[in-house]
Parts: sequence; structure tokens; C-alpha cells
Amino acid sequence: MSKSMRAIIAIVITLGIWFSPVPAGVKVQAWHLLALFVGTIVAFILQPLPNGATALISLVLAMLTKTLSISQGLSSFGNSTLWLIVAAFLFAKGFIKTGLGRRIAYMMTQAFGDSTLKLAYAFSLSDLIIAPATPSNTARAGGVLFPIVKSLCLSFNSEPGPTARKLGSFLMLSVFQANAITSAMFMTAMAANPLIAELAKKTFNIDISWGTWFLGAVVPGLIALFVVPYYLYKAYPPEIKHTPEAKDLARAELDKMGPASTAEKIMFGIFILALVLWATSSFTKLNATLVALLGICIMLITKVIDWSDVIEEKSAWDTLIWMGVVIGLAGFLAKFGFIAWLAKTVAVALKGISWITALVVLLLVYMYSHYGFASLTAHVTAMYAAFGAVAIAAGAPAYLVALALAYASNLCAGLTHFATGPAPIYFGAGYVDQPTWWKHGFVISVINMVIWVGIGGIWWKILGLW
Amino acid sequence: MSKSMRAIIAIVITLGIWFSPVPAGVKVQAWHLLALFVGTIVAFILQPLPNGATALISLVLAMLTKTLSISQGLSSFGNSTLWLIVAAFLFAKGFIKTGLGRRIAYMMTQAFGDSTLKLAYAFSLSDLIIAPATPSNTARAGGVLFPIVKSLCLSFNSEPGPTARKLGSFLMLSVFQANAITSAMFMTAMAANPLIAELAKKTFNIDISWGTWFLGAVVPGLIALFVVPYYLYKAYPPEIKHTPEAKDLARAELDKMGPASTAEKIMFGIFILALVLWATSSFTKLNATLVALLGICIMLITKVIDWSDVIEEKSAWDTLIWMGVVIGLAGFLAKFGFIAWLAKTVAVALKGISWITALVVLLLVYMYSHYGFASLTAHVTAMYAAFGAVAIAAGAPAYLVALALAYASNLCAGLTHFATGPAPIYFGAGYVDQPTWWKHGFVISVINMVIWVGIGGIWWKILGLW
Repeated sequence: MSKSMRAIIAIVITLGIWFSPVPAGVKVQAWHLLALFVGTIVAFILQPLPNGATALISLVLAMLTKTLSISQGLSSFGNSTLWLIVAAFLFAKGFIKTGLGRRIAYMMTQAFGDSTLKLAYAFSLSDLIIAPATPSNTARAGGVLFPIVKSLCLSFNSEPGPTARKLGSFLMLSVFQANAITSAMFMTAMAANPLIAELAKKTFNIDISWGTWFLGAVVPGLIALFVVPYYLYKAYPPEIKHTPEAKDLARAELDKMGPASTAEKIMFGIFILALVLWATSSFTKLNATLVALLGICIMLITKVIDWSDVIEEKSAWDTLIWMGVVIGLAGFLAKFGFIAWLAKTVAVALKGISWITALVVLLLVYMYSHYGFASLTAHVTAMYAAFGAVAIAAGAPAYLVALALAYASNLCAGLTHFATGPAPIYFGAGYVDQPTWWKHGFVISVINMVIWVGIGGIWWKILGLW
Repeated sequence: MSKSMRAIIAIVITLGIWFSPVPAGVKVQAWHLLALFVGTIVAFILQPLPNGATALISLVLAMLTKTLSISQGLSSFGNSTLWLIVAAFLFAKGFIKTGLGRRIAYMMTQAFGDSTLKLAYAFSLSDLIIAPATPSNTARAGGVLFPIVKSLCLSFNSEPGPTARKLGSFLMLSVFQANAITSAMFMTAMAANPLIAELAKKTFNIDISWGTWFLGAVVPGLIALFVVPYYLYKAYPPEIKHTPEAKDLARAELDKMGPASTAEKIMFGIFILALVLWATSSFTKLNATLVALLGICIMLITKVIDWSDVIEEKSAWDTLIWMGVVIGLAGFLAKFGFIAWLAKTVAVALKGISWITALVVLLLVYMYSHYGFASLTAHVTAMYAAFGAVAIAAGAPAYLVALALAYASNLCAGLTHFATGPAPIYFGAGYVDQPTWWKHGFVISVINMVIWVGIGGIWWKILGLW
């Protein structure tokens, strides 16, 4: 399909929604924003232009039509998650420039390097270990793991382009998808999880303790952490699979690298500092973005990276634009009341249906409505309480509802390349094209639903939650 | 002086202000912000690190010490003037990439090219012609003139670095300084000028019409437009001065370029569209940033520039960071009440002094307090009404006060490299180092004061304003 044809499809869909009758209860402004948002997503999939250009055009159209004011339209460029994403790209730069990333990558390879699948599991395990103590999933996947994953890909000469499929494509997608699962497993593994507990208490009078959350998640979570990388290994296989020689190669490379340089040691110190600050943020109340920016500042002061490294980090600026626009559009879609209207409409449509059917339908709608969100927190804020209340009103056991929706709030993170902070970072690395990202995102969401609702349902029955 | 010595000076000054007693009537938070702001400015001058790194460190310190919250600290990255500056860099990219900038530059050279000073006057004249119809001085100097100036420098092989002084340094500074003068000359030549008229009416009951404004400004304005480029020509001379062969060279180059390409024609169309939309913005109410972004979008759609041109435009991202931080720090300095306190303190100190002395002192404080502002609008909003009221209360003729402060509100734009939107653009081009920028900025502010208050004073007497 030619690029102009693809652009025309996106424009026709936008105009189709824009000029179709506005449902009762929806503001005209919200409806127009929906048209622009859907058009943007269609253009993201069809790619008539790079994402950044598409996003900029959508933003200009939103402001030109007064759907958003100038200050509303630009406000999301000051969003703190957006700057955490930018900072993660710069963190990765420090890892790569000092050679620390290569060193850690070779050490991982030395330990697990005889198979690519094992490497993916090693990363999932690393994520799982720090997850309970790192409430920002973006800091975890973007700040901690991404630089190492990227260094590992580079050390196997797998770069965006013809060599992407050697190792990088599989590993990027696998590590990203595992992060959604670890986020679901602990109340302290994702920023909005404590908010979920709070909403459950306030809205349905259900106390979810840290232990209850983990107990409900541990069985489906561990199964998913095993199954999802394996699915990707089969469905989206890396070209390099068995690497029996890799361990020796890694050992030789480590010998060649010799002892760590000063810059590398400083970078390691900054990394540990950031990890500790991210992990203790529940106590210190230090914002994850601030911690990341502090790390960047120390890198600049100690000359681990130069200012030119910062302004030449194209992927950071690319992501700043397109993710900034998506955060803005999605945010105002909720702010203008569209999401609340959608939740209410679904709720009304479900009246008089058995609770099991109602809960499954609600879970599916809740999960897949995340195609319209650029933030897990925004999704939870807009829909968790309403959907939970409807399910409980339909007769579903309250604990089951509270937990199932809580887990779904995290698992939906794998759907798109803008679903959550780590998504634009791993996508922005350039190893996976957009249709592939979305296709596997959808399949994995189904796998997760089967594991969490199917096996999880039995597990929760054993636990006596329903 | 070593870089660490320079850093220590900035740190000591910051700590000195931070820990010195907070004057009565100033919030502790505002005082701490002042310490960080002054420290940032000192570091901008001494350059222990590039401006972007300094700015990022200041921002992190402000958020780490809770002087600014995370959302306050990052909010200025959504500022609309900031994005107009970013857009101006991208506009210049389109000019240069298509060759349109070179063509216009050669045409200017063909017409005025036998002396560099004449070229500077030609740019001043171009600015003056569009000034009454282009209320955004950033759009005028950044969007319209900057791409042509930059192209002209490049076509004379004058680039940042060793060849900067050939032509670029003089021309950049001269065009920038002339913009401050044209801004002062028309009520419609700078965004905050209508606000000044509004404040004058509301606070001192003085009607400043478009005609009165211009009448008061025309004599000192034209003199300043003649004197300031000449001063720079003598004090900061370009290496290429007389270029009698330049006209022939330009003609030959134009012949060599042949007829305009499609991309060049499109770029010209976009330029004219932007110029018309900027010029008619008083009627259409179209925001200058929106117009600029619209232009960028058309460039992207028509492939005049690619998305990679956008994300590789380092100067845009450099400026986004340091100017974003400065706008934030300066904005909150006003929001936290520090500027209002400063105005009140000056007012109190001036009680019981003759009106001429009072007015001169007030004008000087008003003018040079702009070292603490990153926006003319912010300066006007914070100080115009208070300073005017004090001067009138001291017995100064109301019209004289209203107009003198109005002109000073624009002339202060030449002081720093962050004083107004065009400043970071011309400074960011890299032809003039920071000490030079500030030195000539200060000298020209004195020249302007002498012309506007001295000769202007006599002219206003003739007009019967006092």
C-alpha cells in the first residue's frame, strides 16, 4: 500500500469519527479529540509518516481546531513520566559509552550465554528480583535493564536494521513483556498499584494487603514469566539461539577489557545509587524522574557523558515528541470525561447478566481499552473504581473483582508501544517494527488472560477468594 | 581560571545567598529559588559546564531541595514560547536544506553586498518593515530573519568556530539587537506591548494609542536602529567588511543555482503563509507557536524536511533544556512573589526624592532587573504597573512614565542570551560566546538608554508629553 493511501485511510477514519453523531453524554470536544486520537493510532499502525511527524500533526490539528488550547496541547511536554523516559535513554548512553553495559552484558553471557532463551529468562529474573522494591516500572525496565539489554545486543553485533533479528528483536520484546508481568505481581512494583489498593478500599470496602496481592499473583505470575518468553522464542525467534561458544567468547572479551576504567566505576556507582533510591522511594518519597535526572547530572559533572551526548541522543528527542503528544491526547480524553462515559455505558449494557459473564466482559473491556491509554496510572484512575463497582453490583465476589482488575491493570501494559513508560523506550530502540510489536502484544495479552483468569481463577478458588 | 574553580565560585555564590538571612516579606522558598537562579546565571557566565548541563543541575537541585515540586520544575517544558524557539530552529533547517535561504541570502548580497554593515542595515530594515504586523518578536527574528541570516553566514563560509568572526558573529548580534529596537517601536511589534497599554489604562488611567506609541518611538527608534549596528561594526567588527566582489559572486552563484526546485518553492510558500498568519494574528487570534508548528508539519508532509532532520537538530534540543529551565526558574521567582517584593522595596526606597531622579532610578532598576527574566511578558506582568505607579506618585508626568517604561520593557531584550525568545536562537547558533554576548548587550543597553531617555526626552518634550 502506498504511503499516500495509508495517510488517506487515517484521514478518512478521523473525519468519519469527527463528523459522525456525538453520543448523548459525550462533549463535542471529547468526541473530536477521540477522532484525532484514533486517527493518530491508525497512522501509528499504517506508518504514512514516522510516529513523531504523525504526532506533531495531530497536536497541531488539535490546537488548530481548538479541541485543545495551546497551553493544554503543550502541557504534556512537562509530564514527569515523559522525562523519566528521556532520562532512561541518557542512562543507557552512559552505560554504553563507559563500557559498563558491555561488561555486565558479557558477565550475563558468561553465566547464561549458552542459549538466547536463557538470557531472556535471566533478564526476567533480574526484573523480578528488583520489582518488589522498585515501584516505578519505567525506572526498572528503562533505567536498570534497558542499558544492559542494549549493550548485550550491541556486543552480539545485533543492531536496528538487518541484524536486528539476530538477538535484539527477541530480547527487547521479551524483556519488555516480562516487565508487565512483574509489575502485576507486587503492590510495590508499579506506581499505580498502591492507588488500586486505595480505590478498592474506598469504593468496594476491600482491604488488599501487600501479602494478599502477592499471594494471588504468585502462581499465575511465575507461570506467565515462564510461558511468555518461551512463546516469543517460538513465534518471534532470534537468529542466534544456541551459543555454546558464547561463554568462552564472553570470557575472552572480559579479559580483553581488563580492569574497569574510572568512568566505568563512576557509572556503576551512579547505577547503584539510582537503584537504591528507586528501591527506597516508598520511604524517601523521592520521585523516580528526579532520581534519574540526578543520575544524569552526576554523569555530566563527572564527565562520564558530555553535554553533546545528551543533545545528540536522537531517540530521546524522537520519543519526547511522539510520546509527549500521546500522553497529552490520552490524558485529555480522560479529563474531558470520555473515559468515564465509556465506563458508564459498558456498565449499563451489562445489567441483568450473570456475574461470571459480566466479570469476563468487564475484564476484557478493561484490558483492551488500554489501547486508548498512554499510562497505566491514567487507566487505573479513569476506570478501576467504576468497573469494579459494576462487577460487584452484578454479583461477582468482591475480592476476586478487586484482584482480577488489579492484575489486568498491569498486564495491559504489553499491548502497545505507548502503553506504559518502558514501551516507548524498548520500541524506540528500533529493533521491533510497529505491526510486530502490536501483533505479539495482542497474542501475549490473550496468553496472559488465559493464564491469569484460567489458572489464576483455580488458584484463587483454592485460596478461597471466591 | 580552571573549570573547577569556576564551578566553585558559582556554588559559593549560590550557598552564600541560600544561607544568608531572608529579608522580611520574602518567602524562604522564593529566596532559595533566587539563590539557585543567581548561581545558574553565574555558571552561565563562567561556563564551568555547557549551559544545558548547568541548567539541568539547577533544575534537579531545585526539585531535590523541594524549592520546586516535580510538576512545577518540569512544567516549563510545556511553555509555548519555548516551543516557538524550538520551531524556529526547525524553520531554519527547512530554509537551509531546500536552498531557499541561500537564494535569499545571495539576493540580499546582490542588492546590499558591497559592505557587511549595509547587510546589517538591510536586515534591520526588513525587521522594521514587518514589525508593525508581526506581534511575536520571536516569530519575526527567529522564524523570518534567522534562517536567512544563518544561510547568509554559511554562504560566506562563516561558521561557528574559527570562521565565526568573518561575518556571522557581527551579523547575528546586530540582527538580534535591532529586533529589540523594532519591538519597542510599535504597539503591535511585541506580544506584551498591548498588555502594557492595558496596564497603563487600568493602573494610571493613561490611554496609549497605537499612534501615540509610534510617535513617541519613531525618533529615538530610528536613531537607535542606525547607531547600534554601527557600534557593533566598530566594537565587534566582522573580518569581511568591504566585499565589492560579493555582488558579482552572488550573481554568479544565483545563476549556478538555476531555477527554484519544488521543495524550495514549497518552502517559500510555507514562509509566506507563516508570515501572513503571524502578521494577521491580531485578527485571527492564531497563536505564533501554533503557526510555526503548522509550518513544520507542512514541511514534514511535503518532505521538505524529514523527521530525522527534526530529531537531529541538536541546537533545538540544547535550547529546549537550558531555556526551559531558565523560563521555569524565572517564572516561579515571579510567582513566589519575589519580584513583587523587589518592586515594592525599590518603591519604598525612592519616597521623598525629586521625580526626575526617581524616574531615572526606576527606569534603570526596571531595565536591569531584566537580568532576572527569561521573558519580556513576564517582566511586564511583574513590574510595569508597580514601577509606573511609584514614578507617577513621585510626581513624574504620567504619559512620560507610561511610554518610557513601555520602551524600556522592549529595550531590555538585548541584555542576555535568554532575555527574550530570539535570544536563545541567535545565541544558540553558536557564533557569539557568552561573555561577548553579555558585554555588548550591556554596552548597547547604555547606548539605548542615552538615545531613548536623552534624545527621546527632548523629543517627548517637543511632543508635549511632559
